[in-house]
Amino acid sequence: MHILIDVTGLDKGISTAIEATLQALKTKDFTCSLYGPEKEILEILGPNYNKDRINIVNCTETILNTDEAALAIRRKKDSAIVKGLKAMKAGEGDGFISGSSTGAILAGATLITGRLEGLDRAALTVILPGLEGPMVMLDVGANMDASPELLFQFAKMGSVYAKTELSVENPKLAILNVGTEEGKGNALTKELYKLLKDSNLNFIGSVEARDVLSTKADVLVSDGFSGNVCLKSIEGTAQTIVSLVNNAIMTNLKTKLAGLALKKDLKEQLKKLDYNAYGACPMLGVKQAVFKAHGSSNVTAFKNGILSMIKFIDSDTIGDIKKSLLEDINE
Amino acid sequence: MHILIDVTGLDKGISTAIEATLQALKTKDFTCSLYGPEKEILEILGPNYNKDRINIVNCTETILNTDEAALAIRRKKDSAIVKGLKAMKAGEGDGFISGSSTGAILAGATLITGRLEGLDRAALTVILPGLEGPMVMLDVGANMDASPELLFQFAKMGSVYAKTELSVENPKLAILNVGTEEGKGNALTKELYKLLKDSNLNFIGSVEARDVLSTKADVLVSDGFSGNVCLKSIEGTAQTIVSLVNNAIMTNLKTKLAGLALKKDLKEQLKKLDYNAYGACPMLGVKQAVFKAHGSSNVTAFKNGILSMIKFIDSDTIGDIKKSLLEDINE
Repeated sequence: MHILIDVTGLDKGISTAIEATLQALKTKDFTCSLYGPEKEILEILGPNYNKDRINIVNCTETILNTDEAALAIRRKKDSAIVKGLKAMKAGEGDGFISGSSTGAILAGATLITGRLEGLDRAALTVILPGLEGPMVMLDVGANMDASPELLFQFAKMGSVYAKTELSVENPKLAILNVGTEEGKGNALTKELYKLLKDSNLNFIGSVEARDVLSTKADVLVSDGFSGNVCLKSIEGTAQTIVSLVNNAIMTNLKTKLAGLALKKDLKEQLKKLDYNAYGACPMLGVKQAVFKAHGSSNVTAFKNGILSMIKFIDSDTIGDIKKSLLEDINE
Repeated sequence: MHILIDVTGLDKGISTAIEATLQALKTKDFTCSLYGPEKEILEILGPNYNKDRINIVNCTETILNTDEAALAIRRKKDSAIVKGLKAMKAGEGDGFISGSSTGAILAGATLITGRLEGLDRAALTVILPGLEGPMVMLDVGANMDASPELLFQFAKMGSVYAKTELSVENPKLAILNVGTEEGKGNALTKELYKLLKDSNLNFIGSVEARDVLSTKADVLVSDGFSGNVCLKSIEGTAQTIVSLVNNAIMTNLKTKLAGLALKKDLKEQLKKLDYNAYGACPMLGVKQAVFKAHGSSNVTAFKNGILSMIKFIDSDTIGDIKKSLLEDINE
């Protein structure tokens, strides 16, 4: 297996992506190409540059978060995203992972890699940690105005992905909604509810936003707008509360000592909601494995992202998604 | 001023609503009618039953959260909501407050009180506490499929309400969205952005869900579906994190002592996000003052809700909303 890695997109710099790759190479049998500034990559690799397993592809351009995504994909031909995805399309790699701009990766996955047959749009996916274990959440920002039929396809894809990634035999699927009773929600969720109820998916109904972190669902489906609102509200609130707790701890010597005494157990508790265990997620609905890592990933997170992608490729999740979508069409 | 109070809807029981009323009566000059089971009310009031200021209206029915709202309003004619709103419509009161089912209060406000002229729907409002101060958020659950024109009206109403309730001269208005640049969002928010940009409201652009708790906006407008998803995600996450912190504190004797040392400052910090300061919010867009209190309100919260409503009536906020909506029509 040959993995294509964009080392340029992480907030913590390219050394984080490179260190993560080296760690991943120690645990799994694969080769890789690193996309980024060759000179810097060589310097960071130093004596760890194993030419049998690591190839370097020099990239002189960078796609920024502020760039208009589709335009950047067309114009910045020497960026890691464009070069990496084109190489994968040409058969030079089995998967591509990047911590760069979500919009650009999605645009690249759609424009260069291409969508699966019978699917109108691709979905942005995340693995959301929760009190009852992790959950696949999609769409979290690709499709702002979605149809029930599209979300039904996303539900199928999410269920297939959850099966491999979360190792659950028959993933429990739910709709993100404003109430749990059938008939609650907007026109989109009401129609989707009907489609899912009549499907062969393991549909368990609707989950209110209030219960997302404590639900037993393995897959949560939504349109990209409300999925994004939910995910970002959760992230923002978690950050805010944790910073308030830190403020309290930093008040004076007494509270600082108390913070010290609490530190280990607090960390242990908050680990339940830690993103870093799930380093990266696929764009679901495209023809090849395209993984987006958090820009804020540390070494462990990015390494886990690479390992997730290897599992995704090894288990032929895309093949299973194709089958699942075809069932949909033939039904 | 005569206030109509449903004492039946709070999780903590009718004594909470009654105690809150007695406290409010001490600080403000008004009379009131208490709607609920007369015998129990009399028992709880005991020697505090000042007949000059307190009237009791016996109600034998209760609308439950599980009741279909519109149906319950039509059928449960001896409930506090139906009796109270009908009395207000007949001119027997200046405002109605209840901690009962949101759906039933909204249905009652629409079916009994009636909507303002020129307005298609009423909006559910909350005051969301934030790091930069409180903010009026609407719609948080009344209208699942809203048009840009309706949300434009809500933006006007929210701005008028924020002016009185939050005492800001020219409230800063924002859209709940998935990105801050113009052109981000779904069809609804894009169209709304255009309407607001060209309006005479103090429109400051879009706010991402991640930043809702730290925004400087005074009014946040959204459709009822995504507003509800955002609000409930925030509430659920805050509760989850606080419970994890509590778990950490309860681990062993050492952490319990640390928790004790932190308690005061932790409480002080978390107060920034405390709902109880803003006890109740109006259904905006109906002809009279109809306030919904949190079902979980304590005495202070419900008292603050009554005082908010008195301010709302005193300042003739509904009169100002009418004017603001007419400007809209005449523009």
